Amino acid sequence: MRLGIMNKYEVMKMTFSLRAIAHMRSDFPAKFGVPRQSGLVPELKSTVVFTPEFRNPDTLRGLEGFSHLWLIWLFDRSVRAEWSPTVRPPRLGGNQRLGVFATRSPFRPNPIGLSCVELAGIETTGEGPVLHVRGADLVDGTPILDIKPYIPYADSRPDARSGFAPGPSETLEVEIPPALLERVPPSQREALRGILAQDPRPHYQDDPERVYGFGFAGMEVKFMVAQGRVVVLDVG
Amino acid sequence: MRLGIMNKYEVMKMTFSLRAIAHMRSDFPAKFGVPRQSGLVPELKSTVVFTPEFRNPDTLRGLEGFSHLWLIWLFDRSVRAEWSPTVRPPRLGGNQRLGVFATRSPFRPNPIGLSCVELAGIETTGEGPVLHVRGADLVDGTPILDIKPYIPYADSRPDARSGFAPGPSETLEVEIPPALLERVPPSQREALRGILAQDPRPHYQDDPERVYGFGFAGMEVKFMVAQGRVVVLDVG
Repeated sequence: MRLGIMNKYEVMKMTFSLRAIAHMRSDFPAKFGVPRQSGLVPELKSTVVFTPEFRNPDTLRGLEGFSHLWLIWLFDRSVRAEWSPTVRPPRLGGNQRLGVFATRSPFRPNPIGLSCVELAGIETTGEGPVLHVRGADLVDGTPILDIKPYIPYADSRPDARSGFAPGPSETLEVEIPPALLERVPPSQREALRGILAQDPRPHYQDDPERVYGFGFAGMEVKFMVAQGRVVVLDVG
Repeated sequence: MRLGIMNKYEVMKMTFSLRAIAHMRSDFPAKFGVPRQSGLVPELKSTVVFTPEFRNPDTLRGLEGFSHLWLIWLFDRSVRAEWSPTVRPPRLGGNQRLGVFATRSPFRPNPIGLSCVELAGIETTGEGPVLHVRGADLVDGTPILDIKPYIPYADSRPDARSGFAPGPSETLEVEIPPALLERVPPSQREALRGILAQDPRPHYQDDPERVYGFGFAGMEVKFMVAQGRVVVLDVG
């Protein structure tokens, strides 16, 4: 009987075509600097812009009653032709291999991302209704497949046991010289601090001489890390 | 500049092809009776069986360190040719319309389901490694697109405000006459009680004369609901 069931599964449809209902508009032109999970930098603001077919405020009726949302999206910058059964999570220093389904790595058989974000507001714009969210970990332009309300009684398991990632990494102290901080729009200063405090370096690198740079909000931010401190060298 | 960004999005790839990495093997041959969210009936056991290409224990290395998983799957029994901007959630009696993105309705532009389940064990079988899970809300044969570990610091928001669904519906008392209960395998009795206590009727129906039936674990379960009590009439 078991075999009979599997035969049924094996003739089932195996591939599915899904479409982008929206794209993320965020301050990250590329992956470097993006927080490693949603919620780690709650000051970080970004915007969900629907694709033309889905610019209908009716689809959002009642959403304002929820404080948090799920975004289900595609790691479109991380697609590889082949998938690997194991990956090396940055959290483990990058030298230990874990099963791909035991991690949140972007390099997955189906490159689907899952992020819990705070709903900061719904605004009507010339591009239809947009969602302002906080704490997202999506690169600018990321295609979004679905948006769901966060339902704590089904989704929140505060006591879940969490293998190699029991809590977020320790944050670093951040030093931004005042003259450089002035180049950052005031509304984005706390977000930038939060991003840097998360230590955006690849985890297996610890070279106090090395200068790193990433794009944020149209600027290029350059920094070094030494003795647990992030020092910003340039913002331009 | 805003317009420039949207033009960039608009030329981006809009459809994506994803494949089933696994299927659910559950006791529900059809949607009727399936709990309305994951976690509502923790006694309910089901099994994730990987498709042949993904039957590799390496993909699961380290997963045993997590107590809960996310299943990202497809509502393949709920696909409609057209999507509607609004749906009528059973929780609101079925007569109030909410935006599709403000609900967890299966009738979505991309019919993606999201379920948090408890990992009860990983077993090596003739069908490769399988995952035994508890609390799933998936019909037998449902295609699964991705499996991720549940990470409380990113995924758990116990204080999130939750619009029209602040908590699970009240459960009903369940009466199963002993002679009928004996027909249910002992390992599935608590799960059956849990399913019935959730009130599997369509929410907009309240007809104390009506007999409902659903398939569960190869049996057909018939019941009525009157005065807040579920009474099982037949199990066969």
